[in-house]
Amino acid sequence: MMGGRSHIRRRFCRLDKAKGAPLLRWGSPKRQMLKTVCKLWRHFVTPFGSYAALRDGQVQLLERVVGSKGLVMDADRLAVANADWTGQYRGNAEVLVAPSSSDEVLQVIKACVAERLPLCIQGGNTSLVGGSVPARDELILSTSKLNRILHFDESSGVLNCEAGCILETLNSHVGQSGYMMPFDLAARGSCMIGGNVATCAGGLHLLRFGPLYGHVLGLEVVVPLEGGQKLNMLSSLRKDNSTFRLANLFIGSEGQLGIVTQVSICAVPRPLTRNVAFLGCLTFQDCLRLLHLIRVRLGPLLSSVEFVDQDCLNCVKEHMKLSNPVATSCPFYLLIETMGFNQDNDGQTTYAAIEQCLEEGHAADGVFAESETQARELWKLRELVSEAFSHDGYNYKYDVSLPIHKYYEIVEKCKDNFGVECVRVGGFGHLGDGNIHLNITSKCPSDSLKKRMDDFVYKWTTENNGSISAEHGIGQLKLHYWHMSRPTAVLRQCVAMKRHFDPSWILNPYKTLQNV
Amino acid sequence: MMGGRSHIRRRFCRLDKAKGAPLLRWGSPKRQMLKTVCKLWRHFVTPFGSYAALRDGQVQLLERVVGSKGLVMDADRLAVANADWTGQYRGNAEVLVAPSSSDEVLQVIKACVAERLPLCIQGGNTSLVGGSVPARDELILSTSKLNRILHFDESSGVLNCEAGCILETLNSHVGQSGYMMPFDLAARGSCMIGGNVATCAGGLHLLRFGPLYGHVLGLEVVVPLEGGQKLNMLSSLRKDNSTFRLANLFIGSEGQLGIVTQVSICAVPRPLTRNVAFLGCLTFQDCLRLLHLIRVRLGPLLSSVEFVDQDCLNCVKEHMKLSNPVATSCPFYLLIETMGFNQDNDGQTTYAAIEQCLEEGHAADGVFAESETQARELWKLRELVSEAFSHDGYNYKYDVSLPIHKYYEIVEKCKDNFGVECVRVGGFGHLGDGNIHLNITSKCPSDSLKKRMDDFVYKWTTENNGSISAEHGIGQLKLHYWHMSRPTAVLRQCVAMKRHFDPSWILNPYKTLQNV
Repeated sequence: MMGGRSHIRRRFCRLDKAKGAPLLRWGSPKRQMLKTVCKLWRHFVTPFGSYAALRDGQVQLLERVVGSKGLVMDADRLAVANADWTGQYRGNAEVLVAPSSSDEVLQVIKACVAERLPLCIQGGNTSLVGGSVPARDELILSTSKLNRILHFDESSGVLNCEAGCILETLNSHVGQSGYMMPFDLAARGSCMIGGNVATCAGGLHLLRFGPLYGHVLGLEVVVPLEGGQKLNMLSSLRKDNSTFRLANLFIGSEGQLGIVTQVSICAVPRPLTRNVAFLGCLTFQDCLRLLHLIRVRLGPLLSSVEFVDQDCLNCVKEHMKLSNPVATSCPFYLLIETMGFNQDNDGQTTYAAIEQCLEEGHAADGVFAESETQARELWKLRELVSEAFSHDGYNYKYDVSLPIHKYYEIVEKCKDNFGVECVRVGGFGHLGDGNIHLNITSKCPSDSLKKRMDDFVYKWTTENNGSISAEHGIGQLKLHYWHMSRPTAVLRQCVAMKRHFDPSWILNPYKTLQNV
Repeated sequence: MMGGRSHIRRRFCRLDKAKGAPLLRWGSPKRQMLKTVCKLWRHFVTPFGSYAALRDGQVQLLERVVGSKGLVMDADRLAVANADWTGQYRGNAEVLVAPSSSDEVLQVIKACVAERLPLCIQGGNTSLVGGSVPARDELILSTSKLNRILHFDESSGVLNCEAGCILETLNSHVGQSGYMMPFDLAARGSCMIGGNVATCAGGLHLLRFGPLYGHVLGLEVVVPLEGGQKLNMLSSLRKDNSTFRLANLFIGSEGQLGIVTQVSICAVPRPLTRNVAFLGCLTFQDCLRLLHLIRVRLGPLLSSVEFVDQDCLNCVKEHMKLSNPVATSCPFYLLIETMGFNQDNDGQTTYAAIEQCLEEGHAADGVFAESETQARELWKLRELVSEAFSHDGYNYKYDVSLPIHKYYEIVEKCKDNFGVECVRVGGFGHLGDGNIHLNITSKCPSDSLKKRMDDFVYKWTTENNGSISAEHGIGQLKLHYWHMSRPTAVLRQCVAMKRHFDPSWILNPYKTLQNV
């Protein structure tokens, strides 16, 4: 059924597929020996060398587990599931299974382990790094039918739901009791909570609410260990020191260790007010000073400190027809947002804190939104930067994070190294989280320039204790730079965890991590 | 040097200690065979069966690593290190080593792995479950000399320090820049950050700031794996999705997987205002409704919602000579605290939100502190409950957490089951976190009553999806109930992690987890 695999794979298949007289008689000593050699080979080969090809018998086996409605082989529907929405990757899966309970997921995994079938786990398929489509012809396991909200307790704010629930749906559900999900993404209408957890989604509110580790209380996961197992680590408890919090290992593992099937997560009270200011700073040091002062003066009222440099703002002005609201032209701009619960005072408190910073000279100039419409206008200056760059030429994008005092240096280094060959080099992002989106445009695409830039950016980032992937993950896009992400001793332990939970390396192969 | 071990151990020692003619000549075939048998035995025995006894040669080896100042064999100083401050446990260590760098820790671990010497890791020795003193005669490894604050960045609030730094010292250090540590404990003057991380300290601010998982950015740990390794997982980045966050596995592992030697942690802005109210509720359902409303109305201003039942308040009134500030006598009381950044408005905001709840009838009566002195007086009603119970008779204490709707049921069940045999049964604790401290007093100590209560409380808690240890951990105290804490499949994976990182099971034996 599936072709295009390695030489070794096809040889293994031929044995299975042989019709008429078998190559070797069943039970013959030679066959026994061959079976032993195959077994040893499977045990010792590198992870990607020895998967089985999908055969009719296996498809029927899967259909018995998920039912005919849970099995998709229709070309049009598969084309959608194989398509990566960034357009960079395309999978070749010929079958998609959509189990409708965690028991069905377990049965699918048991079949895949027994048959040594590789899997691509797909939630909302919104990965930006090619993580959610098959790299080759892996079977797609979709979590879309695991979409039940199981329980929400409004006193504690604890939500228990299945992995395929869409973030926006959950947000509306908890919103009825005055809560919101503790993170938010642009993909909120499509992305699913299981994928959010598996990729440790960051997003727009991380400065205020912190990472998912602090909010996920427990998980149910299905792991390929020992032929397939379900680990129930669900909990509705905020305090539980009765054993290691094993569930944390699965957060951000990009589906390499197991399939998240259920999530317990703590929602946060939903803010009632929003205030936004846009400030210009003369030096990057001023931006850092302002970040510090605004944090300790506004505390948890502060929800975002976003950074835009002059090149990015110029790009937005040129291509998106927006104007700079700050009268004084500055090399750096900060968008400051607060979200609170006090309709009467929050605006005044925010205004006073920012005014004080201006008076102290940490910002050169600025504007304060008087209405929600004005607030949205100011946000556009930051949100449209990415789109503006796509109109500026051929666009190279990097999502990295850096220690705060090194945050802007990477933009300057890129200007020095590639400025002559490029149209524009600019940096914007979540200053409060140390996450910078470096954008570079050239007149026409150049693979050699891209390769040189990739090498430079990721090398410089790791040398300066940054992360080559701030929030988007590794997936297929950054796989070949993964070895730079941690010291080898640590990476070896990540691989050891992979080998422990997924000894036959069937989950999401060709992605996220490599043998070290 | 050390005695009192098992029969098998002593036989092994005799071989080593034999003076004059050895029992078996070195190199003789019989000796070789015995060595092979020993090796196989060590490989297959249960974790606690085959440690070596500490000999002079090993002590000299350790002294070469840590220097004479880092090696303690003085009886008085050892008596302090062996003493558990709850008075329930006493260790018999004859040697304490205090390395002064993570490289020295690594050398100590290498020696201990090679010699198969068990270790007890000790930070500030403030464990409430016998976790920080040797269970038998393990060597004590103290982190007290790893006490350097390495770096603090005031823009990002990221602190990097060694494991032996005292929490209060760190709090003062970050306080100079307007920050505070994201958790607080009564033991703040003695407990060390390495121990806080290793036990996932909860404490007084968890409702507001969430668990340590959300704040710890990275760790350096020394693990006994492959003869001893240092894993550098330090980071100053709030967003880093470049590989699994392996460091999270060590948070709350009670030193079973490795020794935390350095910590990167994110401090939080230090609040400037505090407001406290004390309310009486007529039903537990009112308490839950009030918790919900106060959370969604006050948002992150809310820092504590503490619960005290009538029995606890009566106990405080009787033994601590305090009076109930609420005029109406109620079965349940809540202490509500807010901490904010706005001197002008926070008091008024808190007052208005609480007044609204009173008007809506969710609380029967209440008082609002007008000054810091009054706030401290109200806090005493909650903080002195534990001490009051110790004056009330022989005191049995339980630290458990429960799903919020089951929070108070355990107190009622205990009243039903043990009320006749006891002086008083009361519950108080952190309602916002689902953490209840169940306190029971009897006229005189009774081992059989204690055993029946232990069995009942832990069984009922696990049957109702609670945790047998909310924040204090397992240590020695709850070791025999550990098997109830998670489904067996999950516990087996915890043991698998232990076996992976500490294959010779030398770290903190006889504690925290058992073979399953």
